[in-house]
Amino acid sequence: MSRSVNRGPIPDREALRQARARIADCIHATPVMTCTSLDQQSGARLFFKCENLQKVGAFKMRGASNAVLCLDDAARRRGVVTHSSGNHAQALACAAACTGVSAHIVMPESAPAVKVAAVRGYGADITFCAPTMAAREKTLDQLRETTGALFIPPYDNPDVIAGQATCAMELLEQVADLDCMITPVGGGGLLSGAALAVDYHASHTRVFGAEPSGADDAARSLHAGKLRGNAEVQTIADGLHADLGKLPFQIIKPRVSDILVVDDGDIIAAMHLLFERMELVIEPSAATALAAVYKHREIFAGLRVGIVLSGGNVDLSELPF
Amino acid sequence: MSRSVNRGPIPDREALRQARARIADCIHATPVMTCTSLDQQSGARLFFKCENLQKVGAFKMRGASNAVLCLDDAARRRGVVTHSSGNHAQALACAAACTGVSAHIVMPESAPAVKVAAVRGYGADITFCAPTMAAREKTLDQLRETTGALFIPPYDNPDVIAGQATCAMELLEQVADLDCMITPVGGGGLLSGAALAVDYHASHTRVFGAEPSGADDAARSLHAGKLRGNAEVQTIADGLHADLGKLPFQIIKPRVSDILVVDDGDIIAAMHLLFERMELVIEPSAATALAAVYKHREIFAGLRVGIVLSGGNVDLSELPF
Repeated sequence: MSRSVNRGPIPDREALRQARARIADCIHATPVMTCTSLDQQSGARLFFKCENLQKVGAFKMRGASNAVLCLDDAARRRGVVTHSSGNHAQALACAAACTGVSAHIVMPESAPAVKVAAVRGYGADITFCAPTMAAREKTLDQLRETTGALFIPPYDNPDVIAGQATCAMELLEQVADLDCMITPVGGGGLLSGAALAVDYHASHTRVFGAEPSGADDAARSLHAGKLRGNAEVQTIADGLHADLGKLPFQIIKPRVSDILVVDDGDIIAAMHLLFERMELVIEPSAATALAAVYKHREIFAGLRVGIVLSGGNVDLSELPF
Repeated sequence: MSRSVNRGPIPDREALRQARARIADCIHATPVMTCTSLDQQSGARLFFKCENLQKVGAFKMRGASNAVLCLDDAARRRGVVTHSSGNHAQALACAAACTGVSAHIVMPESAPAVKVAAVRGYGADITFCAPTMAAREKTLDQLRETTGALFIPPYDNPDVIAGQATCAMELLEQVADLDCMITPVGGGGLLSGAALAVDYHASHTRVFGAEPSGADDAARSLHAGKLRGNAEVQTIADGLHADLGKLPFQIIKPRVSDILVVDDGDIIAAMHLLFERMELVIEPSAATALAAVYKHREIFAGLRVGIVLSGGNVDLSELPF
C-alpha cells in the first residue's frame, strides 16, 4: 500500500482513511459491548469499545501497524526500533512480525518476564538496559546507529496517531449518534486520534480524556493552554505514566472538551466492575474512562457515551481487588 | 409466541428452531473469539463461543428464557420457582423479569452475597434455607404449594435443553466446518443441547464433553452405558458439581463421542490462559473444555474445534492464580 499523502504534522481525513485500509489485515475490528446494570448505575447509555480484545491486548497495535506499513522499502529493510516496557513494545514487535520487518526493542532489565516473553515470542530482538529513561535513550541511539533502524515512538508521531484514530472511526460506525466519547490519556496517542476521528466524522460528538490524579499533566496542560509535565508520577494506571506528547497536545487542545481526573480508588472500583459485570480483563489504565463517567455523572447523565477500553495486559497475580 | 409443538421428551429440530426465535429478544447473540497463540500452543484451530459474555454471565440464560417463554397464560400468572445458589438462579430471575413473570428462588443461607444481590436485583423473591439439598427441596415444595408456581429445573427439562441448544446453533452458523465441538458437562443441559444442535445441523461434527476428575459421573455414565452418580464431589469447577440428569443422558448417550476428564490443575492452567491471552473473565467450569483440548492433543491435532466458554461468574477475590 502507498505511503500516506498527508504531509502536514496533523493527520488529515484522508490519512485516517488510508490508515484504516492499510492496517485492516493486521488488527481485529474489536466488538462494542453494552451492560444494562452499568447503564443503570451510571445513568448514561454506555458503549464499550473493547481494545482489550485487540491483538497484543491493546489499541497500540493500530498505531504500530500503521507506522510500520508506512515505511518505504529502504526503511523496511533496515527495520524498526523502540524502547518500551509496555504495550508499545509488544505492538511494534507484533506489527513488524506481521509485515516481515525486523524489530529491535530496548527493554529495561526490570521489565516483567511475561512482557519480555511476549516480545520475544513475536521474534523481536531485545536489548536490555538499566531501568532509567537516560539508559533507555542511550541504548536506543546506539541501536539506531549500528542497525540503521527507524525509531517508532509510542505516540508523538502522525502515523502512530492516524493508526490509533482507527479505533474511534470503528466505534463511530458501530454506534450511531454518540453524544460523547471518552478515552484514557497518557502520552495522548489514543485521545488525539479519537479527537481527529470525531472532528472529521461526527463533529457533534464531544470528546473527553480521563486521567489519573497521580499523573495529571494532560489535564493541567489543557487547562493552562500549554504543555505541563509531571514532576513525579504515582498511580496504579501504569500505562498512563507518560507525559502528554507535543503533537497529541496540538491536536487535543482545540478538539477535546475536557480532561477529567480520577483517583486510583475510582480506577480500581471501575476495574472491578468491568471484571465482574462485563467479564472483561482490563488493565487499570483502561478503567480510567469508566471511572471518570461515574465520578462526573452530571456531564454524562442521559447521554450516549462511547468508552474506549484501551487494553487488558494486567498482571493477574497483582490484581488490586 | 406459541408453545413448542414438540411433545416428546427429546426436543426435535423444530423445537430448537422455535426456541431460538422465542428467546432472541431475551439473550445476547454472543461473539466467537479466536487466539493465534492458543492455536499455536494447542496445535488445533480453536473457536471460543463466549457465553461468559451472555446476559447474567452464563449460557443458563438461554434455557431459563425458553422455559419461561413456553409457559401458558395460567402458568405465567402463577410464576416460577427453583432452588439454586448459582447461575440458574440468576438466569431464571432475569428471564422472569424480562417477561413479566414472578420468580421465587430458594437459596441456601451460605450463598455468596454477590449472587444473592444479583438475584434480588432482578426483582425475584428469595427464600433462604439451610445449606443442604434436603432443605432446599423441602423449601421448594412448600413454595410450590403456597404460590402455585411452576418448578423450572436447571437441566433435566426439554424446554431448558432446547434453550441451551441455541448456543451451539449460533456457533455452527458463526464458524463453518467445525470438526469438533466441546462443552463442559455438569447436569448435562449444555452438552445435550449441543449434541442435539449438531445432530440436526452438522452431523459430521463430533461432540465432546469435558468434566473435572472430582465430579466425573458423566464420563463414568457414558462409559458404563447407564447413569452413575458422584459419591462425593471435589473440584474447583463449582458449576459442574451436579450429577448428570436423566434426559440429558438419554440425549448424550448416542450422540457424544466421548467425555474427557481433566484435573483441577489442568482447569486452573486453562483458566489462567483465557484470562491472560484472551482478556476474558471466566469461571473454572468454563475452562474445563479448553483444559481437555490441551490434555488430549492427539484427538484435536489439526482440527477446527468449537469450545463453549460456559460462564464468567467467578469470585474475583478468590482467583486460583
